[in-house]
Amino acid sequence: MNDSRACGVCPSSLFTAGAVSSGRVTEMDRWLLRALLKKAGMPEISAALWDGRDTVASHGSPHRMVVRNRAALLRLVFDPLLYFGDDYSAGNIEIEGNLVAFLETIYRALSSPGAMKRRAMPYDRLWQQINPLARSRDNIQHHYDLGNEFYRLWLDREMLYTCAYFPAPDLSIERAQEAKMELVCRKLGLKGGEQVIEAGCGWGGLARYMARKYGAKVRAFNISAEQLAYARQRAHEEGIDGVEYLEDDYRNIKGECDAFVSVGMLEHVGPENYAGLGQVIDRTLTERGVGLVHTIGQDIPQPLCGWLQKRIFPGSYTPTIREMMDLFEPCHFSVLDVENLRLHYARTLEHWLRRFEQHAGQVSQMFDDNFVRAWRLYLCGSIANFTTGSLQLYQVLFSRRGNNGLPWTRHHQMIAGDDHGTV
Amino acid sequence: MNDSRACGVCPSSLFTAGAVSSGRVTEMDRWLLRALLKKAGMPEISAALWDGRDTVASHGSPHRMVVRNRAALLRLVFDPLLYFGDDYSAGNIEIEGNLVAFLETIYRALSSPGAMKRRAMPYDRLWQQINPLARSRDNIQHHYDLGNEFYRLWLDREMLYTCAYFPAPDLSIERAQEAKMELVCRKLGLKGGEQVIEAGCGWGGLARYMARKYGAKVRAFNISAEQLAYARQRAHEEGIDGVEYLEDDYRNIKGECDAFVSVGMLEHVGPENYAGLGQVIDRTLTERGVGLVHTIGQDIPQPLCGWLQKRIFPGSYTPTIREMMDLFEPCHFSVLDVENLRLHYARTLEHWLRRFEQHAGQVSQMFDDNFVRAWRLYLCGSIANFTTGSLQLYQVLFSRRGNNGLPWTRHHQMIAGDDHGTV
Repeated sequence: MNDSRACGVCPSSLFTAGAVSSGRVTEMDRWLLRALLKKAGMPEISAALWDGRDTVASHGSPHRMVVRNRAALLRLVFDPLLYFGDDYSAGNIEIEGNLVAFLETIYRALSSPGAMKRRAMPYDRLWQQINPLARSRDNIQHHYDLGNEFYRLWLDREMLYTCAYFPAPDLSIERAQEAKMELVCRKLGLKGGEQVIEAGCGWGGLARYMARKYGAKVRAFNISAEQLAYARQRAHEEGIDGVEYLEDDYRNIKGECDAFVSVGMLEHVGPENYAGLGQVIDRTLTERGVGLVHTIGQDIPQPLCGWLQKRIFPGSYTPTIREMMDLFEPCHFSVLDVENLRLHYARTLEHWLRRFEQHAGQVSQMFDDNFVRAWRLYLCGSIANFTTGSLQLYQVLFSRRGNNGLPWTRHHQMIAGDDHGTV
Repeated sequence: MNDSRACGVCPSSLFTAGAVSSGRVTEMDRWLLRALLKKAGMPEISAALWDGRDTVASHGSPHRMVVRNRAALLRLVFDPLLYFGDDYSAGNIEIEGNLVAFLETIYRALSSPGAMKRRAMPYDRLWQQINPLARSRDNIQHHYDLGNEFYRLWLDREMLYTCAYFPAPDLSIERAQEAKMELVCRKLGLKGGEQVIEAGCGWGGLARYMARKYGAKVRAFNISAEQLAYARQRAHEEGIDGVEYLEDDYRNIKGECDAFVSVGMLEHVGPENYAGLGQVIDRTLTERGVGLVHTIGQDIPQPLCGWLQKRIFPGSYTPTIREMMDLFEPCHFSVLDVENLRLHYARTLEHWLRRFEQHAGQVSQMFDDNFVRAWRLYLCGSIANFTTGSLQLYQVLFSRRGNNGLPWTRHHQMIAGDDHGTV
């Protein structure tokens, strides 16, 4: 997250420290800061400018924001949902107190009726409509090709970068990620020798698990070269030969499968392409096959926060359940089960954040301090998004219409939460 | 289901036995019958006219339809999805072999790409848009006020006229209905002393269960006077004082509740009114409250089969998951859990059908033979709708956004399926 990337794309590049002198805090500066908080739904926080005095004092609130210079203040006014992140990363905004709790306070205020709403910019929408294969590849590489070394510092040993499942809240992240893979396999009713297609396989952990534990034959697709190299290396080292990792876009998936699974890819697909993904599933899934899509979602349709969208996950969108139906309805799939694992993602992120902070020094050497602050904000903000319900996590199980060979209840999905459990 | 009701509402009242003489079967008659089956997607059945000879012979198929006269044939051609039911009820159409299996064959053929689709008639849509309170009352009374004596013949002892839950497929209907009530209470996380609002309470069984087993305070709404009289009588006899039964429309519900529950009412609400029902929930549910809606649904939007819509459930519509989101999205409710219990409804209906057939003689005396045939067709057709996936059964659990006091997993929902279970 270097500076040129942070501020080089919109009119607010005018508001740079060079172009705007901070000087003494004026009444106009204070008025702008107060107006900004009003626009944000009046969160219970204190706020100060570069003179260090509280411009807004919220007695009893442990949260305090300090804006370090006028350029940052002007950028915040111009586009708070983009530039809060950029200027926090650059050290122009500081948060005193717990960052997650601060962001929870902000997100709750933002969801109040009078607060500003996230809007898609016209060019964002244009992007959504023209999401060609090459662009998808760029977006994925932006995030996932930061280096396996970086992710290895704070993910679990299987390198799962999606929501874990905690049968009990105090489970380790290692066991919770294993429980998530087990849950997915049980929901799919996976059996030995079955053909699986996985769309968007990350570092390949789920595919290896399915092959190793269930004896499934998995073809796992991904467009991140670096992730795939890692996935193939791991499978080779562990002598797993039931997995084939393929560097290709989901739109090019062919063949046949008894189970179609996609964990954490739909966020990168774009609502305009859901029907197309549905057709891919329709042309590959057998008559008795079952599918599962696991995705971050939300309960009302709105674009991602500008900063996340531009700096962390370019081209991403988290769907509502209604929007997800574009995947299923046109091909007459029947939805069998939807589970919302929102709080499991908050817990997963807490584990990641703790490990990340333990390695912040190393990360700073790999990138720089701005990158550390940006990633800290992303992890803390994601926790706050899930704890406040601004984001949801949906697992949707489906089959073709009239498939009567499915389990009668959900009993088979239950995973014991204690150390004597089956995971 | 008397004859004047069956054929008095549309141009095809011209096609009565009086106006159309049957006479000898002609080539034109045979052509019409074959065209009809083609329109239905060529189901694997044999079909004959009033001469008894197979006009369409499907070797190896155990299913055979006999159309007894030309008037019935013409009505079938005019509107098969309405008049198949009417003429089966009137004895003008006979089905040889198992009726459920016959209807399953038909429904599967109807869902093939080339087959005719159910379309809403313009006046149906108009009706949907103007579903005033008085009309709702008429519709409900049409079906539910046939007499408690009638329903008592074939429902379970608690008179639950909605999908049961079978933790094990061979459970009795009595225990499966009890398990359904227990499942609903567990999903809601019901606790002693909590306030419950039930919208559409039928004969009041769930409300009594919640008050008796959980010590909840239930206000249960219904617009069927006869059902309510029964419900109040039962609560009085059993000394249950935690339930108040109110004769009023869901739109008039006021007050506050920790749990909002509606089992089998949404089918009568109409999609145009989902947002309004959502507002009713929004104004009654506490901040930490939880809601559950249990409804028949479908995986693509289409009107009910004409006969069901006109003769059995006037004004009914079974929503898709997408359509149901009108209940939740506008008020920012978060969907926590969707369970599809389609095959449980098929099993429930099999129990009802068996008991109904055991009392067919009594039903015939209460009404007439046409009514018995109509009700048999409705029960068998419903089984076939659920076994073929033409209908689904959705239980949707939801809460306000960011409610973090909910259970971590679904373990608490599990109900043992054997006789030593907790139900």
